[in-house]
Amino acid sequence: MTPLALRDFEAEARRRLDPAIWDYYAGGADDEVTVRANTSAYARIGLVPRVLRGAFHRQLAVDVLGHRLSMPILAAPTAFHLLAHPDGEKGSARAVAAAGSLSIISMAATTAVEEITAAGRSANPDAAFWFQLYLQPDLAYSQAVIERAEAAGCSALVVTVDSPVYGNRERDRRNGFLDLPGLLVAENTREPLPTGEWGNPRSIGFTGDLSWDHLAWLRTATSLPVVLKGITHPEDARLAVENGVAAIVVSNHGGRQLDTVPATIDLLPAIAEAVDGRVPVVLDGGIRRGTDVLKALAFGATAVALGRPIIWGLAAGGEQGVGDVLSILRTELDRAMALCGCSSVLEVSRELVRPAPEESWSRL
Amino acid sequence: MTPLALRDFEAEARRRLDPAIWDYYAGGADDEVTVRANTSAYARIGLVPRVLRGAFHRQLAVDVLGHRLSMPILAAPTAFHLLAHPDGEKGSARAVAAAGSLSIISMAATTAVEEITAAGRSANPDAAFWFQLYLQPDLAYSQAVIERAEAAGCSALVVTVDSPVYGNRERDRRNGFLDLPGLLVAENTREPLPTGEWGNPRSIGFTGDLSWDHLAWLRTATSLPVVLKGITHPEDARLAVENGVAAIVVSNHGGRQLDTVPATIDLLPAIAEAVDGRVPVVLDGGIRRGTDVLKALAFGATAVALGRPIIWGLAAGGEQGVGDVLSILRTELDRAMALCGCSSVLEVSRELVRPAPEESWSRL
Amino acid sequence: MTPLALRDFEAEARRRLDPAIWDYYAGGADDEVTVRANTSAYARIGLVPRVLRGAFHRQLAVDVLGHRLSMPILAAPTAFHLLAHPDGEKGSARAVAAAGSLSIISMAATTAVEEITAAGRSANPDAAFWFQLYLQPDLAYSQAVIERAEAAGCSALVVTVDSPVYGNRERDRRNGFLDLPGLLVAENTREPLPTGEWGNPRSIGFTGDLSWDHLAWLRTATSLPVVLKGITHPEDARLAVENGVAAIVVSNHGGRQLDTVPATIDLLPAIAEAVDGRVPVVLDGGIRRGTDVLKALAFGATAVALGRPIIWGLAAGGEQGVGDVLSILRTELDRAMALCGCSSVLEVSRELVRPAPEESWSRL
Amino acid sequence: MTPLALRDFEAEARRRLDPAIWDYYAGGADDEVTVRANTSAYARIGLVPRVLRGAFHRQLAVDVLGHRLSMPILAAPTAFHLLAHPDGEKGSARAVAAAGSLSIISMAATTAVEEITAAGRSANPDAAFWFQLYLQPDLAYSQAVIERAEAAGCSALVVTVDSPVYGNRERDRRNGFLDLPGLLVAENTREPLPTGEWGNPRSIGFTGDLSWDHLAWLRTATSLPVVLKGITHPEDARLAVENGVAAIVVSNHGGRQLDTVPATIDLLPAIAEAVDGRVPVVLDGGIRRGTDVLKALAFGATAVALGRPIIWGLAAGGEQGVGDVLSILRTELDRAMALCGCSSVLEVSRELVRPAPEESWSRL
Repeated sequence: MTPLALRDFEAEARRRLDPAIWDYYAGGADDEVTVRANTSAYARIGLVPRVLRGAFHRQLAVDVLGHRLSMPILAAPTAFHLLAHPDGEKGSARAVAAAGSLSIISMAATTAVEEITAAGRSANPDAAFWFQLYLQPDLAYSQAVIERAEAAGCSALVVTVDSPVYGNRERDRRNGFLDLPGLLVAENTREPLPTGEWGNPRSIGFTGDLSWDHLAWLRTATSLPVVLKGITHPEDARLAVENGVAAIVVSNHGGRQLDTVPATIDLLPAIAEAVDGRVPVVLDGGIRRGTDVLKALAFGATAVALGRPIIWGLAAGGEQGVGDVLSILRTELDRAMALCGCSSVLEVSRELVRPAPEESWSRL
Repeated sequence: MTPLALRDFEAEARRRLDPAIWDYYAGGADDEVTVRANTSAYARIGLVPRVLRGAFHRQLAVDVLGHRLSMPILAAPTAFHLLAHPDGEKGSARAVAAAGSLSIISMAATTAVEEITAAGRSANPDAAFWFQLYLQPDLAYSQAVIERAEAAGCSALVVTVDSPVYGNRERDRRNGFLDLPGLLVAENTREPLPTGEWGNPRSIGFTGDLSWDHLAWLRTATSLPVVLKGITHPEDARLAVENGVAAIVVSNHGGRQLDTVPATIDLLPAIAEAVDGRVPVVLDGGIRRGTDVLKALAFGATAVALGRPIIWGLAAGGEQGVGDVLSILRTELDRAMALCGCSSVLEVSRELVRPAPEESWSRL
Repeated sequence: MTPLALRDFEAEARRRLDPAIWDYYAGGADDEVTVRANTSAYARIGLVPRVLRGAFHRQLAVDVLGHRLSMPILAAPTAFHLLAHPDGEKGSARAVAAAGSLSIISMAATTAVEEITAAGRSANPDAAFWFQLYLQPDLAYSQAVIERAEAAGCSALVVTVDSPVYGNRERDRRNGFLDLPGLLVAENTREPLPTGEWGNPRSIGFTGDLSWDHLAWLRTATSLPVVLKGITHPEDARLAVENGVAAIVVSNHGGRQLDTVPATIDLLPAIAEAVDGRVPVVLDGGIRRGTDVLKALAFGATAVALGRPIIWGLAAGGEQGVGDVLSILRTELDRAMALCGCSSVLEVSRELVRPAPEESWSRL
Repeated sequence: MTPLALRDFEAEARRRLDPAIWDYYAGGADDEVTVRANTSAYARIGLVPRVLRGAFHRQLAVDVLGHRLSMPILAAPTAFHLLAHPDGEKGSARAVAAAGSLSIISMAATTAVEEITAAGRSANPDAAFWFQLYLQPDLAYSQAVIERAEAAGCSALVVTVDSPVYGNRERDRRNGFLDLPGLLVAENTREPLPTGEWGNPRSIGFTGDLSWDHLAWLRTATSLPVVLKGITHPEDARLAVENGVAAIVVSNHGGRQLDTVPATIDLLPAIAEAVDGRVPVVLDGGIRRGTDVLKALAFGATAVALGRPIIWGLAAGGEQGVGDVLSILRTELDRAMALCGCSSVLEVSRELVRPAPEESWSRL
């Protein structure tokens, strides 16, 4: 059956993948309350469309940190694409680039960043890439990784701030899935050699004392704009802006780090209020429909990032599957905008959403 | 078993209809959140009856745009009645007319409007009809359709404003149900011929740039009162009144256009407040019981319109089935009014309904 | 298995009764939303007990209209006890009287009121009885029924005000259960004969124009205190007090008349506020546990009335079963009071209940 | 399979225990609404973590009544450990002591208090113990029990105040599980003999008139600090502080005494506000995850107490199982603190929790 919706790709990916690999992608921390909340929250938020606004053509393009994207949907950093499909990160990068969107390359990619950006640019010479970094305790090594990403043409550094320690992924622990199988390695963790080549991979470590001081250090380490990923508290959003970050990603890490964090869409309004338009706000977590994207925009997001759905597309159909996922979501967003009377993403305003009762909870 | 409630007709229709046709009627957009919400919302709204008010006789009749209807229940426009039963639109029109009610004839009817109104008037010479219009990009053609409806004796034009594009009906796409089967055509989409006859049918198109300007054009095209169907936002209700519409239909298109729009009954209070009695407000979506009708009246509706239940009655028993559906609902409304101490629909007031917590959400 | 809780009697009654008879007792109007709400509401209301209050002995007795009852629990009027068990109304009356409580005798009893009161007094000479009346359109006949109840020793008239018409009991209609089977008749509907004897039974009719004028007529027809049963709206409670009623019964007729009326426990706070202690307030509907009784008292009820549980006890064990039901509930209430630090029902105060969010809805 | 979470121990315990014994531990009063609420409440409370706070090392230790505990988790008093495993109370005491935590020894222990404290101290010489007391109507006997606990080295008396009568445990009544089977006795209920030895056990009685006067008596009977266990009402918390108690335990007795008491975590905020930091507040009920502990701390608890999970660990693996339960929960709390940016339990503040809508209910 031709997949019509993102959920069809999910079902197909589940059919195709080894159960332990499926669990790696699908699972979350502890009891997976947050995993479920991220998606279920959207049905509680009503859309109240405007009519007769003549929205014949919809302008979906957005500008994010100087990049013109064809739609307010980008690819969140997700690990280990070669586990999902032989096309791996190169396949997804090509599909995302071809869609006119931006990939955030995961530090835990199973393909070298240079190959990913090259693949993406082969599909679209203007394609943009950001690099997701788990800042490592060994700062010199972190510096080398950053410089590698810069050299590969990444235009921003997305620093994950929600992971001073690793989340409790019980599915993986039960499956004994604790390491990359076979010959796969996290290519971008390779040791920098004095020769300028890359040696053996390191394990990704966590920086338990990750702090705003590290952000200061990052400024000395790179001139790239720094994006913080994993902001959920409005006070941290405020601090991030005051500390000069270029953008923030509202994320609970897909429910994989701390369980019972509210759905990101429920957290968004308070964060958007705290940021007050000073920097772009990207939301990830739970996006499955065009109406989900529209709700995120209405609550103040600049764009959303897709995590698991990219993996589903890749697992179901390689590069083409990722392309189909993006194409379906674009079509759905476009249709939702038309039905809400919005000619451009800038017209997607708060009046279109009926807040769920939970929204008031997000006023901390 | 003799059907006792509208749900019995639903079950019988499901038994009788080809699954793809059943799905066409039953389905909605995307994940059908709104389809379910429309009906489930009613159980959350409490009725708190008044007693000892001596409501021995109940006056159910209402006046809507100059028509005296025997009850505040009319037939919403639904497509393709010949798919449900050979009696088709003529059967439903006769049943609705015999019940002293009003049919809104769908532009997507499988019977010509002249035949429908004639059938209705054969059952009740005073029967009234409104014509539902998807305004077509080709205005001359739209004009011809309008004139045809006028000539057939329709007394108002019900312009659907929630469909600048077509909703994502995944059931139909999965079933491959994308066109009328067999020899059926949407009769009222036939090409006007220079001879005054009607030629081949056109596909119904959508006017992506539908706007208030089209409403202005409509005034030049017809002297019929114009009703807007598909209003869900109170601000649009306000604009509609200011732009001189004769009535509005609060509708989310039965959940078939944009998913996650709240239940119409939850949207009604804010709209009724915006309209403030200046024009009649008709609600469609989810009406299954007499108490549902009473709640809509209590929240400010002038009348409700029945969509799927008319189809169920038709599928289950042709003209007679539609008549039974209307008769059961009338009896239920009458009983509910008696039990709430209301001698007339004008006495159905806000004090009878205990707002669900969601109502406060509808204050946008 | 020895029944430990009222729910055990329910299960046993269901096992023993003919399905159509079970349905007659268990069913309600339309979709039975209210039937379910009446019981499920209690779990949403939290008890927050007080401790260290030395409530060694609990005084459960209450005074209602001059009668001293051993506990704030009385028997609601329920019809057709001989359908449930050969002990019939005499059995239940004996059990209720033996428990030191009060029976409200149903006009639809299958036993003559004189026999019921005599049976009750054989178990407890001080037993009190009220008579439930469906005021009949034929006032002379109503008068005769009232005088019969007076003569039989009933000390109050409980006029059902929620039934100007009959509710839509779909279970009964589906079962064809529309009349008393066999030789059973509603004994208290017998025609008064000029001889002073009682002739053929009449069908119970409904007074569609029942109004406050009838209440005025009742004052001329009897000197008994008049209790109104079926009050759910605080405004009607206010009117009832102003019109001199002796007490009110907050009841939605066990969900059998108008569907989607809120649970009586959710309606109680607003009614208690309207009555403001001027007359006793009895609540029926959904009482299954001692904590339910305590919550009703905390929200302002003087006592509660048991409907279906009496039938369950009767069906499961005749007179003895009714006695067991009352005894279990008394024990549960006593325990709940002890655990809440209440030495008497008068100490059961509002501070013990944590209002459910719905309570605010009841402020109409 | 290696147990990874407390729920794994629950499953294992259920597999191993005789169903009636399982029911004794798992069951609660009446319909067990409170049993379920205690655990399910946590998923409704959102955690909104702070980031970039450099919480490399987490200080989990807390001081409670002069004892330094290695973590804010202690063992609630639970009865009859020898029913769960031959290691019995000695096994659990050793495990708790080895974990650097504190056991509240149940008066209904199946092991003598002297043996329990000795066992605990064999594992950790600094181990602390409190003794849970059901104050008995016979005060002289109560005095003897208290002195025995003092002599055994207990450093506080935890008086259960929620049990003036015994809760309605229907599972036990259905199972006929009304007494300790075999040769087991509640060792600490033995009669004090003039010889200074201990005679036959007494049944634990309840003091129906338990009151603040008994608290005054306790001061004369012991110099140990007195802790009240079973406080749920903020007004009682206030009184407790004013009456000089050393600490309170917010507890609904695991749902075993009065049904429909709200979850303890929902009751906590109002109590913490009433106590206002004047004495330590311990919460028991429903703790299953490290995030649960963190939420309790954030709402104002000083520590939490574990009831059923200790039993599960004991049943599943004896002393070792209890140790594993404590170790897993410590690890989970430590991880949750790291992920919330807390370097010490003192930094776990209110801003981390998003109150559930129910919290407002707790303002009585």
